[in-house]
Amino acid sequence: MAMPTAEQINEAMVGFDRLYGLQVLECAPEHASARVEVSERLLQPAGLLHGGVLAAIAESLTSMATALAVMEDGNVAMGLSNSTSFLRPITEGVVTAEAVRLHSGRTTWVWDVRFSDDAERLCAVTRMTVAVRRPSPA
Amino acid sequence: MAMPTAEQINEAMVGFDRLYGLQVLECAPEHASARVEVSERLLQPAGLLHGGVLAAIAESLTSMATALAVMEDGNVAMGLSNSTSFLRPITEGVVTAEAVRLHSGRTTWVWDVRFSDDAERLCAVTRMTVAVRRPSPA
Amino acid sequence: MAMPTAEQINEAMVGFDRLYGLQVLECAPEHASARVEVSERLLQPAGLLHGGVLAAIAESLTSMATALAVMEDGNVAMGLSNSTSFLRPITEGVVTAEAVRLHSGRTTWVWDVRFSDDAERLCAVTRMTVAVRRPSPA
Amino acid sequence: MAMPTAEQINEAMVGFDRLYGLQVLECAPEHASARVEVSERLLQPAGLLHGGVLAAIAESLTSMATALAVMEDGNVAMGLSNSTSFLRPITEGVVTAEAVRLHSGRTTWVWDVRFSDDAERLCAVTRMTVAVRRPSPA
Repeated sequence: MAMPTAEQINEAMVGFDRLYGLQVLECAPEHASARVEVSERLLQPAGLLHGGVLAAIAESLTSMATALAVMEDGNVAMGLSNSTSFLRPITEGVVTAEAVRLHSGRTTWVWDVRFSDDAERLCAVTRMTVAVRRPSPA
Repeated sequence: MAMPTAEQINEAMVGFDRLYGLQVLECAPEHASARVEVSERLLQPAGLLHGGVLAAIAESLTSMATALAVMEDGNVAMGLSNSTSFLRPITEGVVTAEAVRLHSGRTTWVWDVRFSDDAERLCAVTRMTVAVRRPSPA
Repeated sequence: MAMPTAEQINEAMVGFDRLYGLQVLECAPEHASARVEVSERLLQPAGLLHGGVLAAIAESLTSMATALAVMEDGNVAMGLSNSTSFLRPITEGVVTAEAVRLHSGRTTWVWDVRFSDDAERLCAVTRMTVAVRRPSPA
Repeated sequence: MAMPTAEQINEAMVGFDRLYGLQVLECAPEHASARVEVSERLLQPAGLLHGGVLAAIAESLTSMATALAVMEDGNVAMGLSNSTSFLRPITEGVVTAEAVRLHSGRTTWVWDVRFSDDAERLCAVTRMTVAVRRPSPA
């Protein structure tokens, strides 16, 4: 079974990911990346990119990459924990996320995500743990 | 200086918090709470409330409560780390967040946030660390 | 199958827990507590209780309580993640840990641990995720 | 002011770091590494290296490297949060820790630590946040 391309993933984007404007660039079992354009609707009251947007990007990117990879074994993936540290505020431009898989266990996958701004400065990091499970019986 | 009421905070809501529909119920220096109505635009691809929404609520609620409390000393507040654990999926209804302050240090405040669904089941928890700083010189 | 008493657990203490002096006070499926006497051999270079001691206590207390509870189903427990925030230094006396279970899922249990000093001040908090698994085939 | 060598740091090792056997290999402002020999006194009841040992190593290595680096500005460093994910059990041999600085802010430094076993397999990862502060007035 072939993995969908980033273009196919972006065309099928729904719900919250569509709302905040997630654009997947790459989505493979060990590496994934995405970008989001910073606009006024993504800011917090002080004019900075809302930390929840970064947490959401990390969540989606790593859950998606894990889910697509374990699908061929009939498994599903869902976020177990999302730990994001904010290093430097972002106020405009594009935020880019690079996710690298650290571990692919039988029941949990662990990913590191790094966020950078237009000047390629590291602005935030996320450690994501994604649970891999048998689907719930219908 | 009086703290603004929840109603005043909600009327002034902008940016991302307005986008995903944050409704503050209470915002005090040691306790804060909020609710968000779960709608299709907040879901992830499998039909569950997107984890990023929960991370965003925790971020906003605790940053806001900290910021309003330290403002009278001329300080500002911003999220330093957001660590969210997902315990039980939410698919519909209203998610309610209750934030309790664990620590109010000179440079960091630490909060616990608990998320529950309409059946009052605990669905997620966040540990938020909020930095308290002198404002940057203009 | 009866859970062992705290006294029985302490008599059977081995390895690292014995080395740093863990004393279990209570060990039940939803609540557990322990104490450790602060001595020179547990300090870091600046004379404060080493953060690793607190992380170790949280790890042991919650893994032990989970393991004893899932044993009757033939399952084993092991730490998946340990996230400790340090709020206030401890330099002497006794540190007390109180663990409360937040969630008991089929594959992960989540616990909150609070550490306090002799003056009953909150000094640190840990969020522990403990994995529950079938034992590995021999 | 010259940074002390790893040999000098190891000779001056006291308290808990001496108790569990920390051996620093390198300690620079942006990178630090250490090793610990796994012995029976560092195990948990199931015969695995106790997770608290890994948390302690991460704590010490990054606090030490930060403290030595900020000392010339008259500042001190102390652990603010330690978030360790356990990926693969270690039962014997030597555990090696490699710490890389992600961020050096005015008030917090953030480090990633990776732990590997004798077969160079990644066994655990820590995200450490270290607070940088003016020393408390005497």
